[in-house]
Amino acid sequence: MEHMDKRTLSTMIDAAMHRVPADLVIYNCNVVDVYTGTIRADSIAITDGHIVGFGDDYRGREEYNANGAYAAPGLIDAHIHIESSYTSPEEFGRMVVPRGTTTVIADPHEIVNVYGLEGFNYMIRAAEKTELSVRYMMPSCVPATPLEDSGAIVNAFDMQWPMGDRHVPGLGEFMNYPGIINKSDEDLNKLLVALNMHKVIDGHSPGLTGAQLNAYAASGVKTDHECSTVKEMTERLERGMYVQMRDGSACHDLKNLIPAITPFNYKRCLLCSDDRQPRTILEEGHIDNHLRMLVKAGIDPVMALCMATLNCAECYKLEDRGGLAPGKRADIVLFNNLEDFRAQAVFIEGKKIAEDGKYLPSFEKTPIFSVRGSMHVKPFTVDQLKMHLTGTHVRAIEIVLDGVTTKAAEADVKLDQDGDFIFDPAQDIVKIAVLERHHNTGKIGLGFLKNYGIRRGAVALSVAHDSHNIICVGVSNEEMYAAIQALIEQEGGFVLVEDNKVISSLPLPIAGLMSDLPGEEVAARIKEMHDTAYERLDINREIEPVMTLCFMSLLVIPELKISTRGMFDVTKFDFVPAEIT
Amino acid sequence: MEHMDKRTLSTMIDAAMHRVPADLVIYNCNVVDVYTGTIRADSIAITDGHIVGFGDDYRGREEYNANGAYAAPGLIDAHIHIESSYTSPEEFGRMVVPRGTTTVIADPHEIVNVYGLEGFNYMIRAAEKTELSVRYMMPSCVPATPLEDSGAIVNAFDMQWPMGDRHVPGLGEFMNYPGIINKSDEDLNKLLVALNMHKVIDGHSPGLTGAQLNAYAASGVKTDHECSTVKEMTERLERGMYVQMRDGSACHDLKNLIPAITPFNYKRCLLCSDDRQPRTILEEGHIDNHLRMLVKAGIDPVMALCMATLNCAECYKLEDRGGLAPGKRADIVLFNNLEDFRAQAVFIEGKKIAEDGKYLPSFEKTPIFSVRGSMHVKPFTVDQLKMHLTGTHVRAIEIVLDGVTTKAAEADVKLDQDGDFIFDPAQDIVKIAVLERHHNTGKIGLGFLKNYGIRRGAVALSVAHDSHNIICVGVSNEEMYAAIQALIEQEGGFVLVEDNKVISSLPLPIAGLMSDLPGEEVAARIKEMHDTAYERLDINREIEPVMTLCFMSLLVIPELKISTRGMFDVTKFDFVPAEIT
Repeated sequence: MEHMDKRTLSTMIDAAMHRVPADLVIYNCNVVDVYTGTIRADSIAITDGHIVGFGDDYRGREEYNANGAYAAPGLIDAHIHIESSYTSPEEFGRMVVPRGTTTVIADPHEIVNVYGLEGFNYMIRAAEKTELSVRYMMPSCVPATPLEDSGAIVNAFDMQWPMGDRHVPGLGEFMNYPGIINKSDEDLNKLLVALNMHKVIDGHSPGLTGAQLNAYAASGVKTDHECSTVKEMTERLERGMYVQMRDGSACHDLKNLIPAITPFNYKRCLLCSDDRQPRTILEEGHIDNHLRMLVKAGIDPVMALCMATLNCAECYKLEDRGGLAPGKRADIVLFNNLEDFRAQAVFIEGKKIAEDGKYLPSFEKTPIFSVRGSMHVKPFTVDQLKMHLTGTHVRAIEIVLDGVTTKAAEADVKLDQDGDFIFDPAQDIVKIAVLERHHNTGKIGLGFLKNYGIRRGAVALSVAHDSHNIICVGVSNEEMYAAIQALIEQEGGFVLVEDNKVISSLPLPIAGLMSDLPGEEVAARIKEMHDTAYERLDINREIEPVMTLCFMSLLVIPELKISTRGMFDVTKFDFVPAEIT
Repeated sequence: MEHMDKRTLSTMIDAAMHRVPADLVIYNCNVVDVYTGTIRADSIAITDGHIVGFGDDYRGREEYNANGAYAAPGLIDAHIHIESSYTSPEEFGRMVVPRGTTTVIADPHEIVNVYGLEGFNYMIRAAEKTELSVRYMMPSCVPATPLEDSGAIVNAFDMQWPMGDRHVPGLGEFMNYPGIINKSDEDLNKLLVALNMHKVIDGHSPGLTGAQLNAYAASGVKTDHECSTVKEMTERLERGMYVQMRDGSACHDLKNLIPAITPFNYKRCLLCSDDRQPRTILEEGHIDNHLRMLVKAGIDPVMALCMATLNCAECYKLEDRGGLAPGKRADIVLFNNLEDFRAQAVFIEGKKIAEDGKYLPSFEKTPIFSVRGSMHVKPFTVDQLKMHLTGTHVRAIEIVLDGVTTKAAEADVKLDQDGDFIFDPAQDIVKIAVLERHHNTGKIGLGFLKNYGIRRGAVALSVAHDSHNIICVGVSNEEMYAAIQALIEQEGGFVLVEDNKVISSLPLPIAGLMSDLPGEEVAARIKEMHDTAYERLDINREIEPVMTLCFMSLLVIPELKISTRGMFDVTKFDFVPAEIT
């Protein structure tokens, strides 16, 4: 409830008291009560965007027959990067609201890595055009580590003003946990801004345990979405942290965490998608998908809904939502049943926004001029992609299925007379390059990738977590060069090249991260691109060609990664040469 | 966590990381985890007043062997009026901390009714001298109704500044629910102050149901402590309200509400005492008493502790406490077991404050000069206590056992030739008077009280909810006059008179509400006074002579009450003559 005015308060009381008809009454519904864990047949009276009362004797200027559907609070995604949908916030809202999502806690750290606070502001403006309620966390780690070449640096001083905004719940996932436990001055400053503004601090601590986890929690970190085992989840819950159980396009932790849920600790469990591609949203849904998984695994449906609604509102201090009660926002989803969780209608602030899977309001999009034209690459030649190795024994980033972690592999490769790598179709190892694209610095990091499967052509992307430089993989320097040049020309996005020619592409003009096309079209083009990648380039069909590559530059996820400055050993938290001598 | 500084944060991280010894390690304890609902053998490391980690490998500059005791978060009373302990906040803290209470949400509306915001300020200053953490709600209804003669009026405008204090969680119990549902402008203003400062609004809505309860909840009221039945409790929970289950010296609702608790809705249940006299605290305990009752009734002990700790912290947004976890205040109670709940030691911010029932620190008391000398009664004569009735059929306030509600009874009484009441030992009806004592207005309200039992002398008090004028009951005008004069001379408190002489008394110099003596002495003197009242004045032994009388002027509790302006019908919300014509 924000800036309540007397007229609204007065009208709400009058409507509750039957002195005036409600704006809307949803009748003939089964109210899912996440406060008491019960379901009851009731009617909901709504006025000025708020629920004002329960009772079958309410009359409304408008009345909606729910036909016995289950009325649940609007679903909340506790942690998502909208950029990973490759669509703008307006399009993202159009896709997820019909699935029952009415609020997301979004961390726009992808675009902020490219454009700094100007990117943050664009995301806020764009979210104003969707009925979905988007609450943006202030990205905490831009760049993700001090060792990166990101488009922008956001320090503790810079974030004080945006953090002061009441609509910013706090500090986004604090990926740089070594910075906290080793007390980097700037990281302590960031924590102090959040702590003294009494804001939420989101965590990101894969594998952290014992004293290190104690230190991380003692610093005020309140959540974690990187749990992949029951043990990790339990250790975090015992330290007072909320656990955001993740099921995204890349990471599928929820299924492994369900056994950790108890009738007591579920109040500290939230649901999140973290990264969710448009196709996943369109085909599998959003948080409704998590609900189906939970209920199928035997979790009580009201308990599951509580994780998807009230718990999240409590964690992020969104006191105006999370449950159906007088005084709360009328964010209501009507589900056909509590197994399929198909949203037959979705109301946001008392207005019907979606019905039968369709987003109803027409909307304009926010202009993107402030966040386009992001490819600032220093001119380079194909020769700059050459390596100059002295021996054949090298490190290779080994792709691990179903996740974003990698293994540090070793391999023996073929070299030409100058010491450059020669692709050998007999072994699944290729060159991987990361090129700085924000400030024309000309930095190029080179290394090796294992298990990607590519046997022809090249793939180039401007989505490369978290600094979003250009990442490219290919079977020859020439193919790679062609892919990168095409990528620059199309303002970023994804490019597939074969025989030095583009065979598939998707431009992402918004910061090189997001498309300006409708989500369905983006999904279709990515699908076509994946098919092309599997069929023409022979990329490993067990992995997702684009997203897998995007994470190869994320220096905070173990074990081996690559940046503009070369290969990076996450365990040692330092760069390592590609060659093992 | 308030104004965290870098040195503290840094030291906490170092202690968590074993780089420096902790200030204190409590080892060999069973940690009660209110996040997960489990109990585990563990050690707790504490630094700079905060928990920094769990683990048996921590070493501290000080180490405390818990000998297997249960380590629980410090208990929180969700709603209490400290004034009802008849002791100052310092003494109150000394009494309740050894019982395991480390935080109370206090509504100082008794003293604010006498002294306005100066009384509020005194309570804050006094609480600074106790280790108990006291969070004061801003009293919402001073006076309780617009029909009273209180010492002060606090309107919406006045309360903006104290409400802006981060340590003030919100607006105290909004007793004037008719003001809300009938949209009194000033009451809506008070709500708007709280709503727009995003503060908690405490409720008080005995018997409210249906549309009226919807309107009350829609206005943002978040809690209620006046539930006395399972039905009332459930209806409030279903409207998203927290229910504060009360067991006080006067009201014993908890026992009736236990059947309403479920493994799901318990998260919305808090524990409170509302009004608790010193003897009750010393003999039966404080919130530890509620825990014993809950567990004896079959409630899971960790669930019970969760109601007494985390739930309350969540409701009142006290994010720095409520559970044992790194980063939280080290407010820890060591209980011998989870049935008796005897606190063998109590730590507040990592310091041992109580052990074996003893409060350890020495403390000074805040000077009381700003809140003493509160008896401003216009000189009056014994004749002004005379009634001038024309008939013998009258209304009488009928005392109901075990509660603060009354019945509107009717009776036939004897009159003298001037129409004044003559006490008849054959029927249990006496005169009751309320005299204005704040502004020398000379207002005197007269009426009748049934079932008090008094057969000799008089009783006079300056504690008379909520305006705290003088309330007096006696068998003759002369006895009443003597009691009132003695009360004025001793600066308020309690006086018993027989044959026009004081036979027992307790001065309450702090606003006529609180003693400056130690709690044990206050308890002993009240005990002696009760015995005297029963033995010498023949007061009904089934009621508590002092507290019962205190509530006879509380105009917001049905059915019949009395104020400086005469008898008051709460159901009609209007004054009624003593005589029925």
